[in-house]
Amino acid sequence: MNVVIIGAVALGPKAACRLKRLCPPAHVTMVDRDRIISYGGCGIPYFLSGDVSEAAQLQSTSFHMIRDEKFFRDAKDIHVMTRTEATAIHRESKTISLRNLDSGEEVELPYDKLVLATGSSPRRLGIPGEDLDRVHRVSNLGDAVRIKELLSGGAVEKAVIIGGGAIGLEVAEAFADLWGVETTVVEIQDQILPGVTDGNLARMAQLHMEERDVRFFLSERVERIEKKDSGLAVVTDRRELEADVVILSVGVRPNSELARAAGLEISSGGGIVVNDRMETSDPDIYAGGDCVEVLHLVSERRVHMPLGSLANRQGRVIGTNLAGGDARFEGVAGSFIIKLFDVSVGAVGLTLGRALDLGFDAAAAFVVQGDRAHFYPDMELMYLQLVVERGTRRVLGLQGLGSKGDGLAARLNPVAALLKHRPVLDEIGNLEIAYAPPFSAAMDILNAVANTAENILAEKNRPMDVDEFQDAFGCRDRGEFLFLDVRGPQNAQPYVERYPACWVNIPQEQLRDRVGEVPRDKKLILICNSGVRSYEAQVTLDSAGVRDTRNLQGGVAALKKWGVHLAE
Amino acid sequence: MNVVIIGAVALGPKAACRLKRLCPPAHVTMVDRDRIISYGGCGIPYFLSGDVSEAAQLQSTSFHMIRDEKFFRDAKDIHVMTRTEATAIHRESKTISLRNLDSGEEVELPYDKLVLATGSSPRRLGIPGEDLDRVHRVSNLGDAVRIKELLSGGAVEKAVIIGGGAIGLEVAEAFADLWGVETTVVEIQDQILPGVTDGNLARMAQLHMEERDVRFFLSERVERIEKKDSGLAVVTDRRELEADVVILSVGVRPNSELARAAGLEISSGGGIVVNDRMETSDPDIYAGGDCVEVLHLVSERRVHMPLGSLANRQGRVIGTNLAGGDARFEGVAGSFIIKLFDVSVGAVGLTLGRALDLGFDAAAAFVVQGDRAHFYPDMELMYLQLVVERGTRRVLGLQGLGSKGDGLAARLNPVAALLKHRPVLDEIGNLEIAYAPPFSAAMDILNAVANTAENILAEKNRPMDVDEFQDAFGCRDRGEFLFLDVRGPQNAQPYVERYPACWVNIPQEQLRDRVGEVPRDKKLILICNSGVRSYEAQVTLDSAGVRDTRNLQGGVAALKKWGVHLAE
Repeated sequence: MNVVIIGAVALGPKAACRLKRLCPPAHVTMVDRDRIISYGGCGIPYFLSGDVSEAAQLQSTSFHMIRDEKFFRDAKDIHVMTRTEATAIHRESKTISLRNLDSGEEVELPYDKLVLATGSSPRRLGIPGEDLDRVHRVSNLGDAVRIKELLSGGAVEKAVIIGGGAIGLEVAEAFADLWGVETTVVEIQDQILPGVTDGNLARMAQLHMEERDVRFFLSERVERIEKKDSGLAVVTDRRELEADVVILSVGVRPNSELARAAGLEISSGGGIVVNDRMETSDPDIYAGGDCVEVLHLVSERRVHMPLGSLANRQGRVIGTNLAGGDARFEGVAGSFIIKLFDVSVGAVGLTLGRALDLGFDAAAAFVVQGDRAHFYPDMELMYLQLVVERGTRRVLGLQGLGSKGDGLAARLNPVAALLKHRPVLDEIGNLEIAYAPPFSAAMDILNAVANTAENILAEKNRPMDVDEFQDAFGCRDRGEFLFLDVRGPQNAQPYVERYPACWVNIPQEQLRDRVGEVPRDKKLILICNSGVRSYEAQVTLDSAGVRDTRNLQGGVAALKKWGVHLAE
Repeated sequence: MNVVIIGAVALGPKAACRLKRLCPPAHVTMVDRDRIISYGGCGIPYFLSGDVSEAAQLQSTSFHMIRDEKFFRDAKDIHVMTRTEATAIHRESKTISLRNLDSGEEVELPYDKLVLATGSSPRRLGIPGEDLDRVHRVSNLGDAVRIKELLSGGAVEKAVIIGGGAIGLEVAEAFADLWGVETTVVEIQDQILPGVTDGNLARMAQLHMEERDVRFFLSERVERIEKKDSGLAVVTDRRELEADVVILSVGVRPNSELARAAGLEISSGGGIVVNDRMETSDPDIYAGGDCVEVLHLVSERRVHMPLGSLANRQGRVIGTNLAGGDARFEGVAGSFIIKLFDVSVGAVGLTLGRALDLGFDAAAAFVVQGDRAHFYPDMELMYLQLVVERGTRRVLGLQGLGSKGDGLAARLNPVAALLKHRPVLDEIGNLEIAYAPPFSAAMDILNAVANTAENILAEKNRPMDVDEFQDAFGCRDRGEFLFLDVRGPQNAQPYVERYPACWVNIPQEQLRDRVGEVPRDKKLILICNSGVRSYEAQVTLDSAGVRDTRNLQGGVAALKKWGVHLAE
């Protein structure tokens, strides 16, 4: 069997190696435009930050061999042609046309089975100046090496990053953290990580980065990049920003031109369409990785999800099927995680925003709780938001932020695992999180956020988020709202002293006895440190007939994480 | 409604508080024999180790209020009677008999619904001396306070811990780590953590503790404890061990006497039998926590699983049902995790040993791999073992050991979440682990262990474990085995030099060309650093017709983790 694979970065090598292990006589050729192949592209931000010192480490195996043409020939019996572009697929004759990018030589190569692993390309903004010198994309190792040369050469004092998605933020951290570069991120949406997390978590992550000297301009459109005497200027619809280097990270689009020209089915989003065996509309041609769209297990829409982890798993499916097996790739739960300085942010499934856009009657519960038993020494607060469909009580997604990235993954991964089984709230409320005090609380935050969502859907917990709180607090002079602080006096006192007209303290444990003091002609906003005691207060007030109350989700901990400091 | 709850440590308070939030008018009374209630018993080892400095922290809420009688009355409207023993349940009259342990006063209390949260008690060994002074159990906060007084008073130079289960090991770490106590663990089984992990992971955990000066005697039965001039002596069937303090941690048994006397159904294991609503055989009496048995979702047997996390979740189910709801506790996946010095060990589902005992035709795959992308700086090796049923390919359990406990939980939790859905291997091989280089490899170790299991079931990967390797290596002079090291020469050379008669080096990438050098009259044991390249070599040899080969699972990394150092 003669298998040709176009693209040799992530999915291509995985499919090739799996095939060769299952079927050693298979003849496998991988072609790639680049000279550097089979590298961990997701490692590029860590190469820039210095966590990974040499570019070659990204191209090495875990046992320190460089995955180059010789490695694939000797260790894997796979023929690799680098600097080679596939220019056409001839499905009738089952051949492809190749051109060597150095010599210009052209050849035709026959195939029995073809694999498209053509990856993705950085999106262009279509603005003047985006091809200037020192305007870079972080799309391949070559670009990264050039950027790092500039950084280590001391040539970068100011950088502007266009795009506040995952890659842009990782690069911003690298610039600001190791290199001390004055770093500014410009994002056209009104939040960072748009589409990936909801605004509240994005706000917390942004504040964390701001505290580490990364500057953000949201809701700004970049109009052009200009060359100046001293360097570059990024001109937005609001301001002009000086920069020695500009990084464009406004997403990627699937490389599907070759497939389209060959008449294969392409989605409206531009991704190659594949079935769950990773076959294109031509059963002799497989495709996977960044060039395809895959089924989202919650939205049941096709999505473009360019992630090395998906490419690897899809590559194994393709390798198995090439060898005559029947492996399936059922779809994606949409897992995402990123480290940003000292916090990690992650998500799985749908955000509230996305769920509402898709027509789900969705709600969210937000919980702040310790990531270990509250008495365990290195306990830190974690922040989780669960998105759920009203009525069916189906869990649609989870997002979180925490200081311990692995601990966040320990909550995201089980939800990712379950999403295809369409879990309802009870399943998350009762989920068995491995428990001992150094790892979780007896009632883990993941259980707690599901239980909170249940109370919200039952309208026993009627929450208010920080956004709404800020609106209400902003018009506190109107006398419409009363902020009822149910913490102990030592916590509440500074707020009561500062805002005597609108801030009242009745500790939760005294509320039943003092319910007569609660005014019945105001909208009450109930506040504690985390949202737990204020919920308890809400229940107490309900049973006393005081029902116009809202519980500040996440309490003062959430306010602080948003940068809202009312009493300092 | 009048609800009485017997037991006020974990499940009792949870059920009571949940009920009161759903149904504030309910009248709730909790009774407990102890004066100290509602504490985190699982925190006791961390109190002994000094990680938790004050016993009161274990009894506090996350907002630093002590959960005592006053707290429950004021904050929760729950009546608590401490130092009060329930002596009988009268189901016909729906009353219970109570006796005050201080005054001796007896009263009858009526109930509409009763909750049994009577917990568990330490098992006794039934040997002479187990009630001597300074022979302690770590079962309640009072005991723990007394032990810590001895430790901090400098009265403990040597300690013997009887029982190598989770609690015994946690206490051993506390003694040896903070207090520098010469600590010995005696275990009657031939491994630590019996029943919880298989022997290979237990061996690694034991070695880690031995390197930190904890001494172990396995397969030894304790016959008696004697009082000596200088302290105590623990006499086993093999030796006599001096001790200033002896800790008995040989498991717990459900406190079900009260339920049994009332005619409620009790399992053969002594646990109170409940349905998935946590109702006993009397629908007006609920039970949960350490005094019940629950369904194991994989074995489908009833098991006793005394864990604070389960008690909390079951307590919430009971609270909901008391309030007229219909919550269910479906069973347990058997999640377990423990921190031991600088490693964590965890498990979920069935071990290989347990699966075979239950009659499953089970096999295990063992994988060593980095817990992050291999190029990421703080990457460390993780060790996972997946247990799977042949034929059906159903996943039965997962165990692991790693330096990052949260990272281990990030792999255990998704499997725990899935077990009730009876996952097959493909589901774990394709599981979506949140991916970025600081968190996982593009092909995560959890995916990898499932893929390895698949190759083992297909008999493409024919593994050998360290136990078998040691047997084979022990009789290397017989000439039956050849150890074929497929690593690079710099790694293999010390072994070849030391064992020239039986150890041969052909790097994996040269094996296809040099297959003629491989002797065909010996059993080949294939070795690399982790088991990945040796598997690749096995495939190469298979296709060259050399099939009498075994692949050392986990490679030299596994040998080292077992304390097998062949070339140093």
